[in-house]
Amino acid sequence: MTLLVTGSIGIDTVEAPGGKVVDVLGGSSIYFAWAASFFSPVRLVGVVGEDCPPGFLDPLRANGRIDLGGLEVRKGSKTFRWHGRYHQDVNVRDTVSVELNVLAERGPTIPPAFRDSRYVFLANTHPALQMELLGQLGRPALVVADTMDLWINGEPQALRKLIGRLDGLVLNDSEAKLLSGETNVIAAGRKALELVGRSDAPARAGRSQGQFVVVKKGEHGSLLFAGGEVYPMPGYPTANVVDPTGAGDSFAGAMMGHLAAEDRCDVQTLRRAIAYGTVTASFGLEDFSLNRFLRTSRQEIDGRLREFLDRVGG
Amino acid sequence: MTLLVTGSIGIDTVEAPGGKVVDVLGGSSIYFAWAASFFSPVRLVGVVGEDCPPGFLDPLRANGRIDLGGLEVRKGSKTFRWHGRYHQDVNVRDTVSVELNVLAERGPTIPPAFRDSRYVFLANTHPALQMELLGQLGRPALVVADTMDLWINGEPQALRKLIGRLDGLVLNDSEAKLLSGETNVIAAGRKALELVGRSDAPARAGRSQGQFVVVKKGEHGSLLFAGGEVYPMPGYPTANVVDPTGAGDSFAGAMMGHLAAEDRCDVQTLRRAIAYGTVTASFGLEDFSLNRFLRTSRQEIDGRLREFLDRVGG
Repeated sequence: MTLLVTGSIGIDTVEAPGGKVVDVLGGSSIYFAWAASFFSPVRLVGVVGEDCPPGFLDPLRANGRIDLGGLEVRKGSKTFRWHGRYHQDVNVRDTVSVELNVLAERGPTIPPAFRDSRYVFLANTHPALQMELLGQLGRPALVVADTMDLWINGEPQALRKLIGRLDGLVLNDSEAKLLSGETNVIAAGRKALELVGRSDAPARAGRSQGQFVVVKKGEHGSLLFAGGEVYPMPGYPTANVVDPTGAGDSFAGAMMGHLAAEDRCDVQTLRRAIAYGTVTASFGLEDFSLNRFLRTSRQEIDGRLREFLDRVGG
Repeated sequence: MTLLVTGSIGIDTVEAPGGKVVDVLGGSSIYFAWAASFFSPVRLVGVVGEDCPPGFLDPLRANGRIDLGGLEVRKGSKTFRWHGRYHQDVNVRDTVSVELNVLAERGPTIPPAFRDSRYVFLANTHPALQMELLGQLGRPALVVADTMDLWINGEPQALRKLIGRLDGLVLNDSEAKLLSGETNVIAAGRKALELVGRSDAPARAGRSQGQFVVVKKGEHGSLLFAGGEVYPMPGYPTANVVDPTGAGDSFAGAMMGHLAAEDRCDVQTLRRAIAYGTVTASFGLEDFSLNRFLRTSRQEIDGRLREFLDRVGG
């Protein structure tokens, strides 16, 4: 099934204990799209400025499963830039600098050829823009979005309205607590789930899947809230963390890629999608930017998935 | 198989969002023993002062599976007291006051009838005392200990010597990082495992199980390091946390209880033991002191175990 992602495309500079990279390919839609492409073709919608270096997006073009028909190179604008520095403990990072540039302007346009997309992921951005993008789409089967503390605090009304239109919400544990006002992550996830799709429920009645929330906990894995239950997934245990940038987006990409490939969203398929998200993201951590993904195969992901699931549980 | 625990017995005062209890039964050996008793008879070795209120230990006596033959009521001494206060987010707590009292004196004596114990858990205390207690035992099949940052920082030599005599070590993630000097928890657990049993290996050659380390991550579950692999176990997802006191000790108690009951310590048995530790501890959180355990049955634990394991993985 057709899968579409909208999100940022960035020129990243990353400092981590293992080294430093300058002006490398990054951004939520990039990590998402590459991870998703192991499972499904993916349509990318995003904007760069005319400063985007020649050849910068060549890896995406070479992927073969990422359709760049929704990429806009905007005249007179500059590409989003982010500079982050991880501590020795890579769970902690400082933002050295951010230049929103094109992300502070009007959003991208979804090209007509992409409007029939059935599976849609709205990566983190202003919820009003997420809503506007959603409005450009026809009748998607599954709409999932990410968000962040900035919008939870700053745009609560717009965010609630958006969440009411979603089938699934992906967010961090701290964000789930902020959104819900709960200090316990299980209570927070349950309360977040109550917000998902509620305002839209009558129009979507009779669909096979229910709403869901995925709470990401970084190295501690994730929690799926669906069908009145909670499904815990531990993190993939790795000591080989070079650069955690984009891990959450890669997780979501593989998850959505699997759902689109299966064209299902029942709880069992969601659980498998989350397992794929977990192991796919674990590859991305092992090098800067997309470097590890560039030398990963679906076969290697499947191998790690089996080995991981064999070691989980009792 | 016979299971012995040595550890603290305390008079606890606990403040948590759900209420406050004053002068209730607590201490590492108490939580451990009760949790273990669902799986195996358990021998308790510990000391209280003569201030210990009459009837204070009656629940232990009523349990029927906890042998108090190693309980010393020391004349002229006072019982260990702890007063803790949990924040609204119960992952954070302050110690309001501690009176070590009898814990600052000489350790307990293991009675002759207990010296043949095959499974032994040395709950957290000064590593030299843990070593002395170990020296009072005959030929245990499996010796596991807990420790804390105080000893990692303050008694590194004594602690390393102790760890070299163990088959298994149980500790928190922050403690594993402190012990190993690693910031990544997987690297930390692996390095900790290298310390376990090494100095003692020749004497114990030919035994069926290898050494292991369990890194506890609170609500995020645990990691088992054994046989060159890492086995992640998520936490039991619960919104019903009344009092987390003793959760780590209950976890260890159920784990050791299962190992003793099975009289095995291969990786599969360890994994099941850790699953039992996870769900048994989850009951303890639901009320203060031992209150929830007092109304829990092995049947209820087995039911929750099945339901939990069905929801873990992908």
